[in-house]
Amino acid sequence: MTTLAIDNIGQLVTNDPSLGEGPLGIVRDAALVIDGNRIAAVESAGAQADARIDAAGRAVIPGFVDSHTHLVFAGDRADEFAARMAGERYAAGGIRVTTDATRAASTEELTQLTERRRREGIRAGITHVEIKSGYGLETDSEARSCEVAARFTDDVTFLGAHVVPAEYQDRPDDYVWLVTGDMLAACAPYSKWIDVFCEEGAFDAEQSRAVLEAGAAAGLGLRVHANQLGEGPGVQLAVEMGAASADHCTYLSDADIEALAGGDTVATFLPATDFSTREQYPDGRRAIDAGVSVALATNTNPGSSYTTSMSFCIALAVRDMRMTADEALQAATLGGARALRRDDIGHLSPGARADVAILDAPSHAHLVYRPGVPLIAATITAGELAWSDPDSRLGHSP
Amino acid sequence: MTTLAIDNIGQLVTNDPSLGEGPLGIVRDAALVIDGNRIAAVESAGAQADARIDAAGRAVIPGFVDSHTHLVFAGDRADEFAARMAGERYAAGGIRVTTDATRAASTEELTQLTERRRREGIRAGITHVEIKSGYGLETDSEARSCEVAARFTDDVTFLGAHVVPAEYQDRPDDYVWLVTGDMLAACAPYSKWIDVFCEEGAFDAEQSRAVLEAGAAAGLGLRVHANQLGEGPGVQLAVEMGAASADHCTYLSDADIEALAGGDTVATFLPATDFSTREQYPDGRRAIDAGVSVALATNTNPGSSYTTSMSFCIALAVRDMRMTADEALQAATLGGARALRRDDIGHLSPGARADVAILDAPSHAHLVYRPGVPLIAATITAGELAWSDPDSRLGHSP
Repeated sequence: MTTLAIDNIGQLVTNDPSLGEGPLGIVRDAALVIDGNRIAAVESAGAQADARIDAAGRAVIPGFVDSHTHLVFAGDRADEFAARMAGERYAAGGIRVTTDATRAASTEELTQLTERRRREGIRAGITHVEIKSGYGLETDSEARSCEVAARFTDDVTFLGAHVVPAEYQDRPDDYVWLVTGDMLAACAPYSKWIDVFCEEGAFDAEQSRAVLEAGAAAGLGLRVHANQLGEGPGVQLAVEMGAASADHCTYLSDADIEALAGGDTVATFLPATDFSTREQYPDGRRAIDAGVSVALATNTNPGSSYTTSMSFCIALAVRDMRMTADEALQAATLGGARALRRDDIGHLSPGARADVAILDAPSHAHLVYRPGVPLIAATITAGELAWSDPDSRLGHSP
Repeated sequence: MTTLAIDNIGQLVTNDPSLGEGPLGIVRDAALVIDGNRIAAVESAGAQADARIDAAGRAVIPGFVDSHTHLVFAGDRADEFAARMAGERYAAGGIRVTTDATRAASTEELTQLTERRRREGIRAGITHVEIKSGYGLETDSEARSCEVAARFTDDVTFLGAHVVPAEYQDRPDDYVWLVTGDMLAACAPYSKWIDVFCEEGAFDAEQSRAVLEAGAAAGLGLRVHANQLGEGPGVQLAVEMGAASADHCTYLSDADIEALAGGDTVATFLPATDFSTREQYPDGRRAIDAGVSVALATNTNPGSSYTTSMSFCIALAVRDMRMTADEALQAATLGGARALRRDDIGHLSPGARADVAILDAPSHAHLVYRPGVPLIAATITAGELAWSDPDSRLGHSP
């Protein structure tokens, strides 16, 4: 193994309070030493190593952990999006456009599309992703989506219960039977998680429970899409069943907040979705103040949030969810790791996976201070330099 | 002169209704032929030229015209920004931090900082900028800012009347006397425009009129910062005096709207500022429906809008100002040109300056559909390839 030092870091965010100042564990004038694919040490600037990147005073943060994405899909819904934004309520399209295109695409095409989106995310500083299926909605196509997703991450989520597909519109329980039966059996080998969209118009509490129970019985961890469009049973069901995460949480009742604060379920906010659907934003401040463990994720998908920019989500969280810049950064890194129940990522403690983003800025506050500006000078995934901005002129030796 | 064809354009936005469909003058499966620094022709895909860029189905738009920036400054106010976002009302700092740093910086340093920001803007598709002074607030320092700005654009704006500097706090009229006298004389040689911040806490209507009259007498065109924080006299003063643009326009009375609709003054909206200051957004829809000519600009500055992302401004305009994607794109291109009273930029008619952005997307709607994602595959300024994304793999021959 060769060692690599990222040296002359102006502000290093470790997310490890034992290593530095405050909850973000901030160290100034630091060097981060990487051994193979792991963090070896946090040292003072001027560290010795086999190779060296000169950060020249820049900020360095743990790579973003994007715990909620739908990267595997084909097709484009920009026209539907523009029509919705222009106020046309019944814009044509919807998820069926994506389902039809995803079913029709070749596996190679789906893989290339996913790879392209993953590349975009790496350039945006995302070093780990969860990826859901959910645009196949038939057994073979869902299994294929999970298989493609598994080429990019070990956090694959089977989301056959995304919506009831058109062909089952009049018999949703038959679709739940399929999801919990043959479809689950076909997808489980590629998946670590099962997810269900528990919302009016998708799956009700009883159906959602059936999906989660079947997933748990197959050895999968639980995740729930909940309370995106209004209050409902999703959040409390997630907590009750010990789900790792309840995602969206745009509308939370007092009882939802209380359940989340008392349970082991992370509330994962997806503010880019609320941006793109012109919904209200979730009240992140209220959740944090009540003791809820929170995460931020992009929800990359072609219908309601076609962004890979975690920085954009962080800026929205601060502007419109009343989170501080520190809280938003931690939610997008350590929070995402917690939502995936992982302790090897989301922080830069010795032994952690060497997933790092170098910012073209002197502090992480610039992620909010400079909205819309791509600030990732370099991204390192498991010790490998996966992206380096041509303009950043990071000194790299030898 | 050699000719260059951007070929195989999936969707070409010309902003010239005589060339294509609708107000955006959209042509599909097009080639854009450039001769030297000018647009030569819009043709069908497969055009002949000395050199060729294969857009491979991508969308191509006129480069963004950013008609309101403060690119010349030194210093960083991220901490003040983060504190304000965290709800600390009386966060330390303010414009004085920037003024002190700008006065103290060397001319070379100011030039490098401006160049870096300009480079960032070029990568964001901005092919033309207006640049204001306004962080010197003393004669030599203002003149130096105008001189530095003039290295990057012929649309330099003298903004000595940005705020009353600390040393004139008790005698603002003396400062107006300086601005309209020695300072104007020192700055006018580098400037095309004069601007004044007409707002409570900055300059009142009488002071603003004095500044604008002095500028006009010196041969400068007029611009006004108006109605950012509340209704006030700025917009109507701008229209009455024939200013090219009234900028901000966050709060507009019915009388303001009527004046703008009946005059020759463009309303320039700066929604990234309203984002970063947590103000309400201007009602773009209302202005457009009333017949007001509108522009979008970034207002890049270290205090209230430190972004160079016109795409971000476009996304905000659609999400929060009720503009359509078409209107927002046109406001950020042709609208900016109108706000600068130029007819050589902002559109792709034959004879226009060859300022072009190639999007890594099949349509301009993706600028809104994909918020936060850097979508500029290449930027061409006056016929020269100024930026090309390393991942976009644009075919370029020979």
